[in-house]
Amino acid sequence: MIDALFGSGLSRPLEGVWKQVVERVNGLPNERVSIDLPSGMFADQHTSGPCIHANRSFSFETPKLAYFFKENQHCLGNWSYGSIGLHQGYCATAETPFAYFTADDAAHLARVRGRFDHKGTFGHALLIAGSYGKMGAAVLAARGALRAGVGLLTVHAPRCGNIVLQTTVPEAMYSPDQRGKFWTSLPDLSIYKAIGIGCGIGKEALTAAALKTLLERHDQAMVLDADALNLLSEHPEWWRLIPRNSILTPHVREFERLFGASENDFSRNALLRQKAQEHGVFIVLKGAYTAVAGPDGACSYNSTGNPGMGTGGSGDVLTGILTALLAQGYAPSDAARLGVFLHGLAGDLGAAQFSEPGLRAGDIPLYLGKAWAKVLG
Amino acid sequence: MIDALFGSGLSRPLEGVWKQVVERVNGLPNERVSIDLPSGMFADQHTSGPCIHANRSFSFETPKLAYFFKENQHCLGNWSYGSIGLHQGYCATAETPFAYFTADDAAHLARVRGRFDHKGTFGHALLIAGSYGKMGAAVLAARGALRAGVGLLTVHAPRCGNIVLQTTVPEAMYSPDQRGKFWTSLPDLSIYKAIGIGCGIGKEALTAAALKTLLERHDQAMVLDADALNLLSEHPEWWRLIPRNSILTPHVREFERLFGASENDFSRNALLRQKAQEHGVFIVLKGAYTAVAGPDGACSYNSTGNPGMGTGGSGDVLTGILTALLAQGYAPSDAARLGVFLHGLAGDLGAAQFSEPGLRAGDIPLYLGKAWAKVLG
Amino acid sequence: MIDALFGSGLSRPLEGVWKQVVERVNGLPNERVSIDLPSGMFADQHTSGPCIHANRSFSFETPKLAYFFKENQHCLGNWSYGSIGLHQGYCATAETPFAYFTADDAAHLARVRGRFDHKGTFGHALLIAGSYGKMGAAVLAARGALRAGVGLLTVHAPRCGNIVLQTTVPEAMYSPDQRGKFWTSLPDLSIYKAIGIGCGIGKEALTAAALKTLLERHDQAMVLDADALNLLSEHPEWWRLIPRNSILTPHVREFERLFGASENDFSRNALLRQKAQEHGVFIVLKGAYTAVAGPDGACSYNSTGNPGMGTGGSGDVLTGILTALLAQGYAPSDAARLGVFLHGLAGDLGAAQFSEPGLRAGDIPLYLGKAWAKVLG
Amino acid sequence: MIDALFGSGLSRPLEGVWKQVVERVNGLPNERVSIDLPSGMFADQHTSGPCIHANRSFSFETPKLAYFFKENQHCLGNWSYGSIGLHQGYCATAETPFAYFTADDAAHLARVRGRFDHKGTFGHALLIAGSYGKMGAAVLAARGALRAGVGLLTVHAPRCGNIVLQTTVPEAMYSPDQRGKFWTSLPDLSIYKAIGIGCGIGKEALTAAALKTLLERHDQAMVLDADALNLLSEHPEWWRLIPRNSILTPHVREFERLFGASENDFSRNALLRQKAQEHGVFIVLKGAYTAVAGPDGACSYNSTGNPGMGTGGSGDVLTGILTALLAQGYAPSDAARLGVFLHGLAGDLGAAQFSEPGLRAGDIPLYLGKAWAKVLG
Repeated sequence: MIDALFGSGLSRPLEGVWKQVVERVNGLPNERVSIDLPSGMFADQHTSGPCIHANRSFSFETPKLAYFFKENQHCLGNWSYGSIGLHQGYCATAETPFAYFTADDAAHLARVRGRFDHKGTFGHALLIAGSYGKMGAAVLAARGALRAGVGLLTVHAPRCGNIVLQTTVPEAMYSPDQRGKFWTSLPDLSIYKAIGIGCGIGKEALTAAALKTLLERHDQAMVLDADALNLLSEHPEWWRLIPRNSILTPHVREFERLFGASENDFSRNALLRQKAQEHGVFIVLKGAYTAVAGPDGACSYNSTGNPGMGTGGSGDVLTGILTALLAQGYAPSDAARLGVFLHGLAGDLGAAQFSEPGLRAGDIPLYLGKAWAKVLG
Repeated sequence: MIDALFGSGLSRPLEGVWKQVVERVNGLPNERVSIDLPSGMFADQHTSGPCIHANRSFSFETPKLAYFFKENQHCLGNWSYGSIGLHQGYCATAETPFAYFTADDAAHLARVRGRFDHKGTFGHALLIAGSYGKMGAAVLAARGALRAGVGLLTVHAPRCGNIVLQTTVPEAMYSPDQRGKFWTSLPDLSIYKAIGIGCGIGKEALTAAALKTLLERHDQAMVLDADALNLLSEHPEWWRLIPRNSILTPHVREFERLFGASENDFSRNALLRQKAQEHGVFIVLKGAYTAVAGPDGACSYNSTGNPGMGTGGSGDVLTGILTALLAQGYAPSDAARLGVFLHGLAGDLGAAQFSEPGLRAGDIPLYLGKAWAKVLG
Repeated sequence: MIDALFGSGLSRPLEGVWKQVVERVNGLPNERVSIDLPSGMFADQHTSGPCIHANRSFSFETPKLAYFFKENQHCLGNWSYGSIGLHQGYCATAETPFAYFTADDAAHLARVRGRFDHKGTFGHALLIAGSYGKMGAAVLAARGALRAGVGLLTVHAPRCGNIVLQTTVPEAMYSPDQRGKFWTSLPDLSIYKAIGIGCGIGKEALTAAALKTLLERHDQAMVLDADALNLLSEHPEWWRLIPRNSILTPHVREFERLFGASENDFSRNALLRQKAQEHGVFIVLKGAYTAVAGPDGACSYNSTGNPGMGTGGSGDVLTGILTALLAQGYAPSDAARLGVFLHGLAGDLGAAQFSEPGLRAGDIPLYLGKAWAKVLG
Repeated sequence: MIDALFGSGLSRPLEGVWKQVVERVNGLPNERVSIDLPSGMFADQHTSGPCIHANRSFSFETPKLAYFFKENQHCLGNWSYGSIGLHQGYCATAETPFAYFTADDAAHLARVRGRFDHKGTFGHALLIAGSYGKMGAAVLAARGALRAGVGLLTVHAPRCGNIVLQTTVPEAMYSPDQRGKFWTSLPDLSIYKAIGIGCGIGKEALTAAALKTLLERHDQAMVLDADALNLLSEHPEWWRLIPRNSILTPHVREFERLFGASENDFSRNALLRQKAQEHGVFIVLKGAYTAVAGPDGACSYNSTGNPGMGTGGSGDVLTGILTALLAQGYAPSDAARLGVFLHGLAGDLGAAQFSEPGLRAGDIPLYLGKAWAKVLG
């Protein structure tokens, strides 16, 4: 059955006869294909009220915002989208803060290297990562950064990380902390073009103090992840120290620690956009369709990735990638969207080889080169 | 020659003229093909008396129990089975505690991941493994768990394991024991969805005490292997502490330490089923046709694997796989059967690449992804 | 448009009507293809004055010197060269200190191994490399040396390098320094056929002293890289100690530390050739077309490599390769040119697999074997 | 030109007109193909006097002894052999102590595993290997043993080897010595089915004492390599302690340390056979055509391998392979010949991938599985 009764214009719950129709249709054994949106579903807000439970949904030109949220999946079924020949100029000028970031967008952003470019051109990145028992987070972030094209990489970590890092990522230089098991001190920051911080650092008091010092001393956009975000959620007064255009990469639980819980996916998405604007940062909300919200209110949904990437260390690799892109001079907005895309594509290529349950986070950097090759064409 | 004189109905030794016929046939140079069972062989118990020495045996619909035991191989030759068109309903309803676990069964059990599943969905597993000189067991178990799809993995090990684990399995977090060379203390267990214990832990007194404490404190089904089983065999009073539906994975010698020797393969098999029921656990008796016996008396024989897997560390990988499947929410019965199947299939894929003698245990996790891919289709 | 007005004979800036023609042509939307050289460009010196901005340039028989320099690329566009049937004897006898080192040259230099050659035949090399936090440089140099065909390899490093090196490059023997974190002492040098020094050694005072002692004691051609060059730039009085025909491998910044800045690429190239002759050494100026200048004034430009190799550790791999070639008895001139070619080719093969931004320095040794195979045919 | 004047019957130098003919022929520009042997060459002893310098030589049925020695290669050119239809029975019964070990022989010796074989079937091997700075030798030997099919592997090494071994070969158990930097003490030997000793152990006095103790206590055939042989050469009184049928694996210099220099390849070969008989051991003289001489006077020349294997660590891998074959119950004679063949074949497969100069010793274990697969068919 083709469901094209109500499209994206609807904004209040179906009632009366329409409600009865929807319930009747859902009770039929037929396959249901919804055009634009399943009738009853709201395009831009949480759906209350009855809704067609489609087996498949099809959107014109671009997916609807509603397509990206878990709460709608049981009504959308397998969704897809395609052109019906709408005027491209119309699409481009249609004012919307929302975008779906695809392979074309990635190809547009990714830079071809010049013949005379050298390691200086690609920047020196600093990752502050790891602690006793969690040095693997630093290893994975470093591998992500190295395959993302950084010119030089230094990893600052407690002394327990020395042998681990030098053995697993010989391309990276190791900057030793003053302490053995967790991060407490800062190296000279002036030589680094980009800084990524947080993977596996823990939340010791001295680590919190070091993070505060870093934020006070450094005013360039940086990447904050994991425990750096958890510490920030415990010290909301540090928000004013976060450099403008920094990239924060919470998953849902970390997001809720930072900004509180949301009633539904739409309200969380609204909160995401509001907070990115309020704090002047890029917030990468990691999930099935990772969202990148920016200071200008724009919000981009990523088109790559798979649930095999839901495994420990996957996010550390992303932090390495984003830091490496900043070091290469990509603008934070581009770094965030391209990095998330490459990370997901590498995960997809890895899963094609190792299956989704068989994927390890360490596979993602291994396939990052092939992901770049696909993007660069 | 086709041997179809006696089938699976026989239950006492052939005598007189039948004995003479069998001996005469075995003396002929002809190739002998037995249908159902070689004449003289008992289907469900140890064969005493003369038996056709078949070059090949063929069973209808499913292998006979007798097919799985070493003691019968010299009479069975190369065996196979196939459908002759018996009514599927009949097969499904035929009451038997025995089953042959095949690719179809694995495909039925294996779960396809949902688009919005994340690392929380796939559970946090704890492996307690390794000791000074045997940290490799922890490494291999961790690699098995990571490629089996766990969401998060922590390995608890003595302090000598820190660098080894962080270097080889960066995706896993390391939980340090209070001691340097063997396991003595427990981390907070409340955050773990599944626990696997025993690979390479040794049998120090403090380790035994820690195992007892673990069993007293934890009441969820866990995986017990290797030295955990050896310690259990020395402390039979701990049987009452083993959580219901736990999975125990002895090889034959470990099985005999736990339950004593058996006269033959049939009596060991009966003992296996009896003990699984008595203790309310799943016992995985590792070998050529690994058997999984459960609290309900059912016993499943695995169809994958090869003798190249008879190499140190192979069992550690299995422990990691089983623990990871429990963490993902597979019921212990499913985890045990699917895990054993995937482990064997990965070993088969590995041996196709590296040959049977050339196979290392560390190859098994490497091919686990391909095994998943075959199972998921 | 075909631009063949002025070729390589020009040596003063275009003026008057010619200047106007060039400016007019550059302003047209047509594609411009320059023959020999873009009109206005000088063949052997820095171009001052107007010049055709070609989209493509084509040279006869061999690239012009001007083709190798960054400052000309915006006028050359994509350049290529090819034979127009000039008499080969003429090309061979044309007196020029400049050469373009191609696959044919590499095939000519590379030696096929004899059936009865053994590890003694291929020499024992010593790498002095690494310090606390930079042991990866030693790892990468060692991997380069091993895949370049050395018979035996010893790496001398501070004691912090023991586990790192033994774990990552088991084929190499480790020679411990007296100190834990940086290089200060010399092993018995008499057993080594070639020495490579400098990768990641740092610039501690005791390290500087050890380098001086090495230079005083050893009179065979060696390979000097990285911090060995930086120390040399701080101690110009050591130049007299550098063994004749040694190979020095600076990148541009290291070159400038040694010899000062240059006004343009041509003057830097002249300085390179002058210094190689003055000090009786081979200087490998690393970059887009790595130049190898020798004591006899010859200068060879390499034809392999890509900007993906502009990443930390790439140069360490080259040092290992060059040292291994010296150990195998290649003359320094051959070792330098063949080593640079193999290094670049391995990087090209690696980038074909991993993309340019996805390339890690550690990929280069991995593809060195395939590079050898291509060269050996 | 076909050279078939003199064949293998010759035993004194050519003189007079025959000498003139040979010299004349060598002076001609024609290609020379020698049948059986180049005229003037002796089949079974050092050639004195003039000899045809063939470009190619061809032997019937099997290579001549003279073919295996370096001193003859310049006269043999590229040699080959093939059947001309001699009666196979004749070949088999022709009494000669010499044999050329080929793929057919390997296929004959290699055992197919039984479905019910397990890690106990494949034996527990002990490698005593490594010292401070040379732990890589233990790593490579262990990798060789693991890919050669051993059931269980323990590596006994000084304490500096703990992290190195557990990180690189997790399948192996580590047995710690009482000392930190070199081998001095013995573990309980009763549980091991085969012992391999010598790779990288050094020659400290306490190490020598431990080796003597091992030889006194253990009377089963073992594998002795490298420094174990060097120590033996310094303590010839220990020869009486070497267990009968042990396998010794010297390269030429180690052989000369043990038994003195030889005038030529034939006399070295005679010495090899004599010493193997005298001491009742198998001596594997490693080189281009590795020779395995046994207590019965037989001497087998290996047909696999390439000069790319002339690289540090290659011999360590062989020691691991031989020890693993003994542990699996191969007779020493079979273990020596099959092990040498597999090692060489793995090196050939590795060189096909990585080229000869690009081959690392660690590649050999990686290709051992494929070598097994080729041998097992």
